Amino acid sequence: MELNSRQACLDADADDPLAGLRTQFEIPEGLIYLDGNSLGMLPKGVSARVDDVIRRQWGQDLIRSWNRAGWMQWPHEVGNKIGRLIGAGPDEVVVADSTSINLYKVLSAALMLARQQRPHQRIILSERSNFPTDLYIAQSLAQSLGMQVQCADTPEALEAALNDQVAVLMLTHVNYRTGHMHNLPALTAAAHRVGALTLWDLAHSAGAVPVDLRAANADFAVGCGYKYLNGGPGAPAFVWVHPRHIPHAQQPLSGWIGHAQPFEFDPQYRAAAGIGRFLCGTPAILSLAALDIGVDTLLAAQPMGGMAALREKSLHLTDLFMQQVTRRCAEFGLACITPTSHAQRGSQVCLTHPEGAYAMVQALIERGVIGDFRAPNVLRFGFTPVNLRYVDVWDAVEHLYAVLQSKQWQQDRFQQRAQVT
Amino acid sequence: MELNSRQACLDADADDPLAGLRTQFEIPEGLIYLDGNSLGMLPKGVSARVDDVIRRQWGQDLIRSWNRAGWMQWPHEVGNKIGRLIGAGPDEVVVADSTSINLYKVLSAALMLARQQRPHQRIILSERSNFPTDLYIAQSLAQSLGMQVQCADTPEALEAALNDQVAVLMLTHVNYRTGHMHNLPALTAAAHRVGALTLWDLAHSAGAVPVDLRAANADFAVGCGYKYLNGGPGAPAFVWVHPRHIPHAQQPLSGWIGHAQPFEFDPQYRAAAGIGRFLCGTPAILSLAALDIGVDTLLAAQPMGGMAALREKSLHLTDLFMQQVTRRCAEFGLACITPTSHAQRGSQVCLTHPEGAYAMVQALIERGVIGDFRAPNVLRFGFTPVNLRYVDVWDAVEHLYAVLQSKQWQQDRFQQRAQVT
Repeated sequence: MELNSRQACLDADADDPLAGLRTQFEIPEGLIYLDGNSLGMLPKGVSARVDDVIRRQWGQDLIRSWNRAGWMQWPHEVGNKIGRLIGAGPDEVVVADSTSINLYKVLSAALMLARQQRPHQRIILSERSNFPTDLYIAQSLAQSLGMQVQCADTPEALEAALNDQVAVLMLTHVNYRTGHMHNLPALTAAAHRVGALTLWDLAHSAGAVPVDLRAANADFAVGCGYKYLNGGPGAPAFVWVHPRHIPHAQQPLSGWIGHAQPFEFDPQYRAAAGIGRFLCGTPAILSLAALDIGVDTLLAAQPMGGMAALREKSLHLTDLFMQQVTRRCAEFGLACITPTSHAQRGSQVCLTHPEGAYAMVQALIERGVIGDFRAPNVLRFGFTPVNLRYVDVWDAVEHLYAVLQSKQWQQDRFQQRAQVT
Repeated sequence: MELNSRQACLDADADDPLAGLRTQFEIPEGLIYLDGNSLGMLPKGVSARVDDVIRRQWGQDLIRSWNRAGWMQWPHEVGNKIGRLIGAGPDEVVVADSTSINLYKVLSAALMLARQQRPHQRIILSERSNFPTDLYIAQSLAQSLGMQVQCADTPEALEAALNDQVAVLMLTHVNYRTGHMHNLPALTAAAHRVGALTLWDLAHSAGAVPVDLRAANADFAVGCGYKYLNGGPGAPAFVWVHPRHIPHAQQPLSGWIGHAQPFEFDPQYRAAAGIGRFLCGTPAILSLAALDIGVDTLLAAQPMGGMAALREKSLHLTDLFMQQVTRRCAEFGLACITPTSHAQRGSQVCLTHPEGAYAMVQALIERGVIGDFRAPNVLRFGFTPVNLRYVDVWDAVEHLYAVLQSKQWQQDRFQQRAQVT
């Protein structure tokens, strides 16, 4: 599918079998939102659902809602819905805490397993360009366990670094900064061949690209609730562990909700039998309610082909963006660091510019096109197939062209960095 | 103040300078809620505040709200408000994660400090009756660090067990099951005399009893957002560290939000300078908004004397309950396990019954008096001075009398335990 005019984009939107999914979201007038990989848009159902949780379940039923509304089961129920998007079996996923904290749990569990079974393996292998929190958590655990974090400089260097010293291969499936996507099944198999366990961070995958953890025979996975799953700011995260590891998997955040019988108030910890042992404290009910609605916006695509259909559209969207940037913006010193190969591309496109990246993103935001700046020089654009139109992509590149051509980004007000972004 | 009739209770409510605070809450018609120590009641402002966060800040402003709405600062801002209730200085408290997870952070930090400075100290001293999650987390850390959890069987046995082998004295200020309150300043001083650090769990204290962490010269504290702070189901928790420890305090959940410069995306962890280093993942914004309103319901008491005034009322309420239980229910085999001494009592009263505790709590709930059952034999009643009336206490005991006198609790439907409670 090649779209060579704005009208062709409008026609493609009119023919798009997934187009109706967009109506699930509140979309601000005139906004082109290419940042669903940082914070997904608001699903229309969230406000009413959360208000019901607040006014009726909390306000009226109070403590009785732990039973009556089934609050205690929500981490499992929302986890099961997410499981359908990532190829997990029933009762293999729970929602809890943050991605960083879940990563700590599963990386601990993986390292403990490795230490028991193959004590000579002392390396956590990852990538230098992995999302920092993943590296920070790995550094913390490596330090406390006397192990070592080894970072490959490129995706290609990873396979070469996989040897029988590696305890755990810990990767983010789709890179936050470049949009590069690893071959999850192939790297899992390669890791297993040298006796290493695999831990996949699906922060930029769940709800964006098809993932089949069971088919790949992966070991551990975590992911984020507020990006492509549309769970809202700071939504809780999820965690998956292959059932073969569960009986032996110990995690150090042994809070009472992960206990086999939390309400026996046993002074001695005894882990729950299943994935529930990766829970820790009391579930964040308001945030879980929002995430539940967010995940539903993706499950709504199941009748139209589910994640496979969303992936097909996502590739059309990113192809279109890359094509139009090449056509319209070639002369302005931008480079595309996202792979052109479909097999290596997530659902985002990242451009670099030596000195203007931050200011260009700010100038685009002022024009109603929201992307992200990522230090030091990246313009990052996320494409959420569940609510983005072809014409949005076309228009976004026209705005980018206008910013570049007019040198608008060089205006003073776009240079000053905010304290946080 | 001794109240000898229902009318006297009504008069006391009419004269109560704190009575107006009750109007801050949504209170279901006819309900007597003695469970604010499990889940605080809904403050009226929560629904509108959370809906604004959802519709405007998330729905319209999207990712820009991290700056525009100041989301990134909320863990500090709500932390500062909580700090005013527990005697912390400015910028000494942050809101994050769950109590269990925060306990893991500060207990790790305390044990690391002890190991560096006094490596012969290998004991975490606590109580067998501490809330299980605290013991589970201590067990986990003791196991990984080669240390030992020692539990005293009674509050009195604690001081005897404090010796120079103790690295950390870890206690819950007010016991969840008995309502016994420790002497926080005295135990802190006793711990310091033998060279131990102190870690206080304020889950049943913050918003219920006055705490002055700085005056007591305590070392570490954590606490819960959804009990007396009225933050809603699964609200995030808080963490405090005395500033003298901050520069040396390392915590293992080294997520990106605790980094000195999260948006530099530095691959090497470098902890934030202040209490921010005890943050980990992206803040749970919806839950933080609700907690902010919850904490405000307590700060609203500041003009009427703040926590000291609330404490005075709380003692009147628990005195009244104990007095009426003695007067009305003496013949039914109940025992009170909450200390009669004000200095040793939190804001709850716990009764035991050898076989009927669970069924009695269920029968009371059916009559609109909500308390908690705590295994194996405890009827637990929490008294939140910010929204409870004297007449509620009077009526609650009359309901209890009716349940006991009629043997209503022996009916079959009250015997069957729910799966969770």
